[in-house]
Amino acid sequence: MNAFELYNPTKLIFGADKVKQLGELVKPYGTRILLVYGGGSIKKSGLYDDVLFRLNEIGATVHELPGIEPNPRLTTVNKGIDICRTENIEFVLAVGGGSVLDAAKAIAAGAKHGGDVWDFTIHRATIQDALPIGTVLTLAATGSEMNGNAVISNWETKQKRGMGSKLIYPKFSILDPKLTYTVPVDQTVNGIVDIMSHVFEQYFSLTTDIPLQERFAESILLTVIENGEKAIADGTDYDARANLLLAGTYALNGTLPTGVTTDWATHGIEHEVSAIYDIAHGAGLAILFPNWMKHVYKERVGKFVQYALRVWHVDPQGKNDEEIALEGIEATRAYFTRIGAPATLRELGINDEHLDRMAEEATQFGPIGSFKQLTKDDVVSILTASL
Amino acid sequence: MNAFELYNPTKLIFGADKVKQLGELVKPYGTRILLVYGGGSIKKSGLYDDVLFRLNEIGATVHELPGIEPNPRLTTVNKGIDICRTENIEFVLAVGGGSVLDAAKAIAAGAKHGGDVWDFTIHRATIQDALPIGTVLTLAATGSEMNGNAVISNWETKQKRGMGSKLIYPKFSILDPKLTYTVPVDQTVNGIVDIMSHVFEQYFSLTTDIPLQERFAESILLTVIENGEKAIADGTDYDARANLLLAGTYALNGTLPTGVTTDWATHGIEHEVSAIYDIAHGAGLAILFPNWMKHVYKERVGKFVQYALRVWHVDPQGKNDEEIALEGIEATRAYFTRIGAPATLRELGINDEHLDRMAEEATQFGPIGSFKQLTKDDVVSILTASL
Repeated sequence: MNAFELYNPTKLIFGADKVKQLGELVKPYGTRILLVYGGGSIKKSGLYDDVLFRLNEIGATVHELPGIEPNPRLTTVNKGIDICRTENIEFVLAVGGGSVLDAAKAIAAGAKHGGDVWDFTIHRATIQDALPIGTVLTLAATGSEMNGNAVISNWETKQKRGMGSKLIYPKFSILDPKLTYTVPVDQTVNGIVDIMSHVFEQYFSLTTDIPLQERFAESILLTVIENGEKAIADGTDYDARANLLLAGTYALNGTLPTGVTTDWATHGIEHEVSAIYDIAHGAGLAILFPNWMKHVYKERVGKFVQYALRVWHVDPQGKNDEEIALEGIEATRAYFTRIGAPATLRELGINDEHLDRMAEEATQFGPIGSFKQLTKDDVVSILTASL
Repeated sequence: MNAFELYNPTKLIFGADKVKQLGELVKPYGTRILLVYGGGSIKKSGLYDDVLFRLNEIGATVHELPGIEPNPRLTTVNKGIDICRTENIEFVLAVGGGSVLDAAKAIAAGAKHGGDVWDFTIHRATIQDALPIGTVLTLAATGSEMNGNAVISNWETKQKRGMGSKLIYPKFSILDPKLTYTVPVDQTVNGIVDIMSHVFEQYFSLTTDIPLQERFAESILLTVIENGEKAIADGTDYDARANLLLAGTYALNGTLPTGVTTDWATHGIEHEVSAIYDIAHGAGLAILFPNWMKHVYKERVGKFVQYALRVWHVDPQGKNDEEIALEGIEATRAYFTRIGAPATLRELGINDEHLDRMAEEATQFGPIGSFKQLTKDDVVSILTASL
């Protein structure tokens, strides 16, 4: 096990109808609020009205930034930063899925930054201060509700990049499983793949003697696999939605990487694909991950054997390690296909035109990943296998 | 799954030689320090000198409260409170195991309280303020390093009681597995039993549809069972000590009870035993828990079947649920015995003299527990089976 620090100050409020606590949760931070949200779904569901009602209760002045994109754009983030500055915003409230939360985090950090918020993503500046943030989550997926990370896209440069800081952990996140009842099946599927992918990035590690972290990771995968199918079959299954939501939070709240060298190469590759094609993050990951697995499993076949046995209950009888490992990888692909996720880039209308550019961008600062360090050639191979 | 709040602001610093960060960790809170510790073991190991060196680096004024007992006493806590008041202490630093940490928490809360600190344990007052606390942990056991609970004993009234507050979470806890190398085997054993017992209290629940919480609990148990034996066999096995330490923290840092109705009856009974006999908490729990299990398993035999299969890998072939459940309970007892924990109260020189009084005290506010609500008669049965 490696040395590590674990610190997560976000307060999670979990359960049905917890939005009713919104006023008291926001109030300590101020009453000049920027409300950040996406499309019209929170208006259709009534959540928008609920949120405004609770903010009115505390006499808040609410400014709005609607229209956050699924891959939130730098231009939109900059609009939010402008509002924060001109309106002396005291608190940024995100209501929506991971993209909305990420945009809110970038806005909160950018509002306190003299320069361009994009600087944070390219290590030209580090976050020194940020407005306080709170979230009401409507989608089990990114884990953004309980971490200090945000990913935004720059459409001028066709880049999708992340920023991170202890200062952009949400002060609170309200997780009501019922708010995810109306999530369409395709977004539920993307969320499931996203959660599982977060676990993969932290589970497939060369670090040894990390039994607790491994078992926690397997716990999340087993929970998501079972409850994901239930939530797809019946979107209003409270416990399935609740289990998915909690699993999504734990997949990326700092529990899994303690003491572990993590990978994140596949996310890096996917960011390049969606920077050019604006595809759903989960869809990209569903296509790429089994191909990444096949490309790297020989680095430590035993880890993939453990994955196959514990997560997919592969029957080891009469099989060698390589066969067991490959069966686990095939089970991953089969599950993604069974829940309706794409298996090839072509299904999303992507051909080999920009493969080289994507591989080049993904490895621009050198090889990526740690389970196997991927060069540009490795990335080209994985992308080619994903066509 | 029940509704819940999850909030844990303690910063965990985990790894070899992390005590070197002590100065920078303490400094933001002040330089007038109360150093709380137990017997002489931290002086023998050199840790005491290391701690003082790091505190001197930041120019701290250090007052000391040595001699915290294994079941920390109210009288000792009151001594610490007096020092805090007369010396204008700004920060309480606990160096030791769970008892030292608990004493430090009680001192930190008591120092800011007008009345008797015992009031917090009998719900006559709630903690409104506390001095900031930091810890350097030397024993994997109580989980006190990352929660807001403290248990202290009143020897005048022969009572052992807990207090809890968000205000007594340590600001930081330093966990260096190497600091646990010198823990004697019997204390390592008590720690193992303590950790497993914390999991049991939160795992054996009637709450349904909590797959993630159940699997997390099983993950901790499996990790402790395996690494506990390794740490006993070789006290200087870094990874075994590290895995045990991390498991101990997660067993009681708020991860397991999210959305779950927990039990805690066995802890309540054990507190009454050690309030009268001053036995090690882990020893008492090792004796009581399998007997509690046998007393309650019929309330939901399926949960005990799951425990037997997933944690002890009981072979279910040709057995009915009751047989599988009982085999899991027997495996628990066998493991405790294998690592050298006691199985009967008589082994500790305890007879039936005070059984009735202990049962009376344990149930003085009504039935205890939730998996099965235990009346005084139930407690007498469990204690009698434990003789």
